[in-house]
Amino acid sequence: MTTDDRITPGAPLDAPRLIRAQGVTAPLGFRAAGIAAGIKASGALDLALVFNEGPDHAAAGVFTRNQVKAAPVLWSRQVLTTGRLRAVVLNSGGANACTGPGGFQDSHATAEAVAEALSNWGTETGAIEVAVCSTGLIGDRLPMDKMLAGVTEIVQDMGGGLSGGTDAAHAIMTTDTVPKQAALHHPQGWNVGGMAKGAGMLAPSLATMLCVLTTDAHATAEQLDTALRRATALTFDRLDVDGAASTNDTVLLLSSGASQIPVEQADLDAAVLAVCDDLAAQLMADAEGVTKRVVITVAGAPTEDDAVTVARAVARDSLVKTALFGSDPNWGRVLAAVGIAPVTIDPDRIAVSFNGTPVCQNGCGVPGAREVDLSGADITVEIDLGLGDASAAIRTTDLSHGYVEENSAYSS
Amino acid sequence: MTTDDRITPGAPLDAPRLIRAQGVTAPLGFRAAGIAAGIKASGALDLALVFNEGPDHAAAGVFTRNQVKAAPVLWSRQVLTTGRLRAVVLNSGGANACTGPGGFQDSHATAEAVAEALSNWGTETGAIEVAVCSTGLIGDRLPMDKMLAGVTEIVQDMGGGLSGGTDAAHAIMTTDTVPKQAALHHPQGWNVGGMAKGAGMLAPSLATMLCVLTTDAHATAEQLDTALRRATALTFDRLDVDGAASTNDTVLLLSSGASQIPVEQADLDAAVLAVCDDLAAQLMADAEGVTKRVVITVAGAPTEDDAVTVARAVARDSLVKTALFGSDPNWGRVLAAVGIAPVTIDPDRIAVSFNGTPVCQNGCGVPGAREVDLSGADITVEIDLGLGDASAAIRTTDLSHGYVEENSAYSS
Repeated sequence: MTTDDRITPGAPLDAPRLIRAQGVTAPLGFRAAGIAAGIKASGALDLALVFNEGPDHAAAGVFTRNQVKAAPVLWSRQVLTTGRLRAVVLNSGGANACTGPGGFQDSHATAEAVAEALSNWGTETGAIEVAVCSTGLIGDRLPMDKMLAGVTEIVQDMGGGLSGGTDAAHAIMTTDTVPKQAALHHPQGWNVGGMAKGAGMLAPSLATMLCVLTTDAHATAEQLDTALRRATALTFDRLDVDGAASTNDTVLLLSSGASQIPVEQADLDAAVLAVCDDLAAQLMADAEGVTKRVVITVAGAPTEDDAVTVARAVARDSLVKTALFGSDPNWGRVLAAVGIAPVTIDPDRIAVSFNGTPVCQNGCGVPGAREVDLSGADITVEIDLGLGDASAAIRTTDLSHGYVEENSAYSS
Repeated sequence: MTTDDRITPGAPLDAPRLIRAQGVTAPLGFRAAGIAAGIKASGALDLALVFNEGPDHAAAGVFTRNQVKAAPVLWSRQVLTTGRLRAVVLNSGGANACTGPGGFQDSHATAEAVAEALSNWGTETGAIEVAVCSTGLIGDRLPMDKMLAGVTEIVQDMGGGLSGGTDAAHAIMTTDTVPKQAALHHPQGWNVGGMAKGAGMLAPSLATMLCVLTTDAHATAEQLDTALRRATALTFDRLDVDGAASTNDTVLLLSSGASQIPVEQADLDAAVLAVCDDLAAQLMADAEGVTKRVVITVAGAPTEDDAVTVARAVARDSLVKTALFGSDPNWGRVLAAVGIAPVTIDPDRIAVSFNGTPVCQNGCGVPGAREVDLSGADITVEIDLGLGDASAAIRTTDLSHGYVEENSAYSS
C-alpha cells in the first residue's frame, strides 16, 4: 500500500492507496459540513455533521471504557444498538460530561433537532438514527440555543464534495493544531474515509478521541462491528499519550453501500485498520505539547497482551517521557519502568535499543549507550524481554513543557 | 503528640514529641557520618554511614517491589535475612542498578570494606552485618576506588553527636534540596530517629527512596519488622509523586537497645509510624519540581484497598496534576481519573471537594465550582464515592515545569 497526499481522480489502482487530503466524504454516499455555531467563544468552527445518504445505513461504534461516560456517549451507545445510523452530529467547545440527566436530555434534544432538520430537508429521519459526539471541557452544560440553531444551519450547509468533510474535521478540533483525515481507495472500487480529533487525554480506552469513519462498501452492521473492533484494538487502543482516558471517546463506522460492491471481511478489516492506523499516527504527531513522536516496541514477550502491558507501562512513565523530551538516552529509566509492569520478567535478559542502537543487553549498559543521538523528532524504543515470541507496539509522545503549559490552563 | 523543631534536653515528656532537627543519631547507641568521597562530580557530600554500637543489633528492612532491583538491594535483602545489622553504608551519586554481577560484587566489596574498617576501629564486624544503599543514575558502575577510600575515611569520622546524623542525611541527597530528618522522643524514655531521601521516582513500592530508621528501644527483629511494615504501608507506600518506582528503594530500621527499655509492639508501631509519616510529608514537600503539596482523600469506598486504588489513580493523572499546577479547579479531570480506576464505581454518586469546598455532587458540577481558590501551596482533593465506609489518602504533588526541567536533563 502506498501513502500519498495526492490522488489522481479516476486513475486505476492496483493496490489500496491511502491519502490524507480526504476524509469522511471520500466514500460515495456521504455529505458533511462544519460550521461555527458559537459554542466556542473564539468563534472557530465547532459543529460538524456527517450524513449518510445510503442506500445502506449500517453502522457500528466503540466507546470509552471510562466508567464516567459523557451524556453523548450514553445516547450514542443506545442508538447504536440498532446497528444503523443516518447521521452523526459532533461538537467541540464542551464535552457535555458530568452534566446529569439534563445533559442527557441535551444530547437527546440535539439528535431530535438533527432528525427534524434532515426530515425538513427531504430525508425522513428519526432521532434514533442520529449519533451525538461532544468534546471539550468536562462539567458544563452546552449552550443549547446555539446548538439547536447550529443544527438547523448545518443541514442547509452540507456540501456534496470533499470540502464538507474537511470542514467537519476542522469543527471537531479542540487543542488539536491540525485536522486529521485519511481515506483509503481500494482497487475493488470501494473506499473508506475517516476523521479524528485527539490532542489531550489520550489513552487506553480508545485513546480518548472522537473519530468518524465512513465506507461506501456494501457491508452489514456485523461486518462493520468486527472490522471496527479489530482495527481500534490495534491502533487507537495502542496510542497512549498521558494515560488519561476521557469520558467521551467515540469511534463510529458508517456504511452507505453506495459503491454497491459487497466486501469480504478480510478486505474491510485491512482497509479500516489502515485508515485507523494512519489517523492514530496523526493523533500522536499532534498530541498536546509533543516534541517527540515515540514508538515503544516490546518483543520477546510471553504473550501479545504482556507485550502491550509492558510497552504501556514504559509509555506512561513520566521519567522516561521527560528524558525523551530532553533527548536523553537514559535507558535505566526504561528498565525501571519495565520492572514495575504487572508482568513477570527476568531483569537479566532485558535488551533495549534506542533508534536501533543497542543501549542495554542482559540488563546491563552497553558501552556508548549514553551517546546515542535522540535529537530527532522520531524516537523508537525497542525492548526485548527475552522470554517468548510475542511483540506489540505502543505509540506515545514525550512529556514536555508544552504539555504542562497547555494542561495547566485549560479550563481557566 | 506535638511537633516541634526544638527540644529541651532532659525536659520531661508527657507525650511523644516529634522534632525535625534530629535524625538517626537521636536514639542512644548510634553514630553516623557523612563525607564527600568524590563519587559526585560536584564535590558534595556523597557517602554516609550509620553505625549501631549496641548492645542490640536487631534490624528489619523493606525493599522495592520493582522487579529490576539494584545490586545494593539484592545485597541488603540477603544480609537482612539474619534479622541483624551493625551498620548501613549509603552513597549518592550512583544507583549501582542494572550493573550485572560486577555491580553486585561492588556492593559486596563495599560491605567488606566497611566491616574491615569497623574491625580496625575496634568493633569486630562481618560484611554480613553491613547493609548497603545506593542512589543516583541507573546503569553506571560506581567508582570503587573512591568508594573504598571513602569507607576508610568515614569510619574515622563518625561523630557521637547529632551532627553526624545531619551530615549523613545530607550525604544521601540527590535532587533533594533539603535533608529530611525526624526523631520521636517517647515519654517512656526511648527514641526513634530517621533520615530519608526522595525527590524523584517517587511511587508505590516504598515511594522510591532511601530511609534509615534507628531506635534505642529494646526490641526483637520481629517487633521491628512488624512495626516497619505497618508504618511503610501507611506512609511511604501512600506517597506517589510520579508513579515511577525505583530500583533502589530501601527502608531499614535498626535497634541498639541502648535505652534498655523493652517496648510494647503498639507503642513501637505508633512511634515508627509517626516518624515515617513525618518523613513522607517532608519527601512530598521537596519532590522534584513541586509547587503544590497535594493530599487526595477517597472516602465512601467499599474497602480501604479500593480507596487507595482510586486515590492513586487520581494522584497519577497527568491532567489532574497539571491542572493543580495551574491552580485550576478542573474537577472534571478528577472524575475522569476516578472513572478509569479498576474499582467499580457509580458515577452518579461521586462528590468532590477542593480544599473543603464542594465542586461536584452526584457526579455533576456545583455552582461556583470553577471559582474555588487553589492558589495556595497546599491543596486537598476530597472524593466521596458514596458506596461504603472505607477511606484512605495518598500524598502527591503537581506536575510542573520544574518537574519536566529537572527530569529532562538528569543523566546528561
